Amino acid sequence: MKIAVIGAGSWGTALGIVLADNGHEVQMYARRQEQVDEMNRKKTNENYLPGVELPENMKASISIKDVLEEVNTVLLVTPSKALRNVLEEMTPYLSEHTTLIHASKGIEPETYKRISEVIEEVVPEEKRRAVVVLSGPSHAEEVSLRKPTTVTVSSTDEKAAEYVQDLFINQHFRVYTNTDIIGVELGGALKNIIALGAGLSDGLGYGDNAKAALITRGLAEIVRLGTKMGANPLTFTGLAGLGDLVVTCTSVHSRNWRAGNLIGKGNKLEDVLENMGMVVEGVRTTKAAFHLAVREEVEMPITAQLYAVLFNDKDPKQAVDDLMQRGRTNEISYLTALLDDSSF
Amino acid sequence: MKIAVIGAGSWGTALGIVLADNGHEVQMYARRQEQVDEMNRKKTNENYLPGVELPENMKASISIKDVLEEVNTVLLVTPSKALRNVLEEMTPYLSEHTTLIHASKGIEPETYKRISEVIEEVVPEEKRRAVVVLSGPSHAEEVSLRKPTTVTVSSTDEKAAEYVQDLFINQHFRVYTNTDIIGVELGGALKNIIALGAGLSDGLGYGDNAKAALITRGLAEIVRLGTKMGANPLTFTGLAGLGDLVVTCTSVHSRNWRAGNLIGKGNKLEDVLENMGMVVEGVRTTKAAFHLAVREEVEMPITAQLYAVLFNDKDPKQAVDDLMQRGRTNEISYLTALLDDSSF
Repeated sequence: MKIAVIGAGSWGTALGIVLADNGHEVQMYARRQEQVDEMNRKKTNENYLPGVELPENMKASISIKDVLEEVNTVLLVTPSKALRNVLEEMTPYLSEHTTLIHASKGIEPETYKRISEVIEEVVPEEKRRAVVVLSGPSHAEEVSLRKPTTVTVSSTDEKAAEYVQDLFINQHFRVYTNTDIIGVELGGALKNIIALGAGLSDGLGYGDNAKAALITRGLAEIVRLGTKMGANPLTFTGLAGLGDLVVTCTSVHSRNWRAGNLIGKGNKLEDVLENMGMVVEGVRTTKAAFHLAVREEVEMPITAQLYAVLFNDKDPKQAVDDLMQRGRTNEISYLTALLDDSSF
Repeated sequence: MKIAVIGAGSWGTALGIVLADNGHEVQMYARRQEQVDEMNRKKTNENYLPGVELPENMKASISIKDVLEEVNTVLLVTPSKALRNVLEEMTPYLSEHTTLIHASKGIEPETYKRISEVIEEVVPEEKRRAVVVLSGPSHAEEVSLRKPTTVTVSSTDEKAAEYVQDLFINQHFRVYTNTDIIGVELGGALKNIIALGAGLSDGLGYGDNAKAALITRGLAEIVRLGTKMGANPLTFTGLAGLGDLVVTCTSVHSRNWRAGNLIGKGNKLEDVLENMGMVVEGVRTTKAAFHLAVREEVEMPITAQLYAVLFNDKDPKQAVDDLMQRGRTNEISYLTALLDDSSF
């Protein structure tokens, strides 16, 4: 089967490799002609997946029209900021009832919408089936090297999720289904905030004990906002919640961790973003989550401190110290309070 | 106040330092005269906490009688295997209504009892108040360097837990209370099984994606056994559950991770234990949990595979591959099944 992949960065390319390994014809859309030429002629994508050989049944193009031709399954891997434009470009060339899968982890800036909500808004109903999200603990580099990886696919339509599970599942890449798309999308997006915080703590020279506390408390505030927004709290204890949170906070591969680390070492946000030259979703997600927490009246102390560091010039050390100095509390009453509005 | 600490390894000494920092007279019990001399004269404990200077108000002794004199608060930090003997030695010298705190993470071999259960069995009621456990994500090295750390103290008697919270809490060391002692003890013990598994996976050359999956699935099986044994499932999402699990699985400091890592690289269990020369609680805990899972009729696939590797010579690679090859499943139905017997 022909499958289009929109976005030829490290994650889009790695997922394209999984699909190609499973025998599909993979048509990658990239923006720069040199990258397309490199992918087609040299069978590499050195800037994003150094040292990895691309499969024969993967082709790239800068024409979104060509990429979508005779295709009824599309995988979107674009930064949240670029998504709406890409969708508008794509729509005229989509076949009817296309399955749209996305593997982006963010919240749309300004609107604070989940990625699947944006897709449903832009792509007319007759053009698509229910949107499917793919998420979970998955560094692109490891996926491209066929190291064991597990992910979750989620959709409001269980059949659509199972269809996508069949496309991706193989010996190295295990795929579980989950019908809680709100939880799966929010888990993937909100974990980047905590990854920034973990990087910040490491950058300040704090240790693994402090980072483990941030991860634990971070998951609690993700659950709190997520359940308020309609997610099943159990999703956050699964691969797209806890699993992805752990991998992003403890690995130096994570660009969110790296950005936080540089800020913890005293660099300014603007300089960090400029020097990294890559999208750091966690920065935008911190802003979105901060505003969502205010709107939904949810307490998110880690998000609030990070917001102050990123956007109000608060001293990172003071922010982490303020988190540590919170009052003497009973742990269960704290955790139970998180679930006040949950379906437990 | 005078406080006795039974066990002068890295964790006992680090916790002794916290108590000494808070102004208490700390009396450490150690087994070897040279270690006692080093601690008292050079103010170091190089084998366990290299480079750390011990506080002036910490003294060591090989006499359990002297250490317990005029003391009504005792902190026990002994391997689960030695616990019963140490308690029997101590009991004659205990004052009435002593507060017994323990910071050991294990399950008693053969009896499969929690540490607090063993303490309550051995020490007569008139000698003690309710037992308090201290647990959470806390590498001893970092605690001794005053890096930010958070822990949970738990007891069936809330007043006893709050008393211990007051003894330990300071600017670097945050202490939360929790009345679910079953959950706090099981979280601390069972996480060592998953840490062995994480080390095994790393030793086989698998990556962060595989490890994150193990941690996520591992927490799920800990919740499953724990709730069946009477714990509150929320405890496992807190510091003594998830927090400790993350720190132990992702740090090369962890001796359980190190043991697993060596086995993953092809070493035999006996050789690993002999060469490490340190207690590896996770090995005994795997055996205990495997038998508890059978007794309680709880599915624990990671524990079962590790048991086969450690005690039945199963090939580690085959064990991890078997875990990855489990069927196509729906994530939520899997997670919900875990909580069948819970109080949610």
